[in-house]
Amino acid sequence: MEKSVVNIYPLGSYTFGTKEPKMEKDTSVADRLARMKVNYMKEGMRTSVEGILLVHEHNHPHVLLLQIGNTFSKLPGGRLKPGENEIEGLKRKLSGKLAPSSLQPNWQIGECVATWWRPNFETIMYPYCPPHIAKPKECKKLFLVHLSEREYFAVPKNLKLLAVPLFELYDNVQRYGPVISTIPQQLSRMQFNLVNT
Amino acid sequence: MEKSVVNIYPLGSYTFGTKEPKMEKDTSVADRLARMKVNYMKEGMRTSVEGILLVHEHNHPHVLLLQIGNTFSKLPGGRLKPGENEIEGLKRKLSGKLAPSSLQPNWQIGECVATWWRPNFETIMYPYCPPHIAKPKECKKLFLVHLSEREYFAVPKNLKLLAVPLFELYDNVQRYGPVISTIPQQLSRMQFNLVNT
Repeated sequence: MEKSVVNIYPLGSYTFGTKEPKMEKDTSVADRLARMKVNYMKEGMRTSVEGILLVHEHNHPHVLLLQIGNTFSKLPGGRLKPGENEIEGLKRKLSGKLAPSSLQPNWQIGECVATWWRPNFETIMYPYCPPHIAKPKECKKLFLVHLSEREYFAVPKNLKLLAVPLFELYDNVQRYGPVISTIPQQLSRMQFNLVNT
Repeated sequence: MEKSVVNIYPLGSYTFGTKEPKMEKDTSVADRLARMKVNYMKEGMRTSVEGILLVHEHNHPHVLLLQIGNTFSKLPGGRLKPGENEIEGLKRKLSGKLAPSSLQPNWQIGECVATWWRPNFETIMYPYCPPHIAKPKECKKLFLVHLSEREYFAVPKNLKLLAVPLFELYDNVQRYGPVISTIPQQLSRMQFNLVNT
């Protein structure tokens, strides 16, 4: 019955720099699904892991999102290598997307907050494995990442790191898609302690 | 990093009977919001608690919902008395809605899966307390209820108890509203063990 209490620090207590661009592997959704199919044939179901990093501003929690171009936003994370541990893989992906090249931060990975399933080589995902789907093509897990009071983020030059308030994500499936737009509901069971430093 | 594993039993392993009708206190949304306002003046913010009871059928989890009339569905639960403990209050409400009058089942209340806030005396709720709302009018908490392998439910004659599959709730805000339609996302982090008895 214990309630998760999560400390969140002000956006202003973090420092943001840049690093070399990290290009997307695919230039279109069709390319992405085609590559997914090829990889599935070789390695089986893809497992991907993404991190929810929280900061606060104006007394309200914000989620850090990577923006590509002007519209598409995603959580930092990515695909595990075959057999790779979820937590270790997420740390590797977070460092690739957010840490200076020389540094391997001590990421504190917290609880899994959601799991999404991709039944077919299509964009649509569900928060359960649909009935009659024996071989889902991807399982995506979202984890809370507990930030320290101070962090230095280095963001690839082709991406922008944005702090997006929960109230902007909520009920905004048009802009953020089903996975990111329901993060507010998934976090709602947690008690946030908005620390002022 | 431990993963919650939840045992779910088949719908068919439960027995359903009826009991005396339990009428709604309000006959319209306007009545309900007016009564909420009167109670708020007397007692301050309302806390309500609701239970998510899971069964499985066709190898897929279902949520037990109480249906009033032909369209409106709700989770079993209700408003706490001033100062009442959340868990004890939910047990009291579950017994009122689902147990035979003579019986007080040993409800196993699990983790909180979501919290919703009502900023004003209006129907709209959010999965966070919106910025600049110092005095929310209601806080609603959803808890997972762990059912045993056998249970006997007695349902008030004016209500129907339905087992609704996750895939029916998902993305169906029109029929089930924002709270119930995002239960699949909130449960997605859990691992379900569908027990066959």
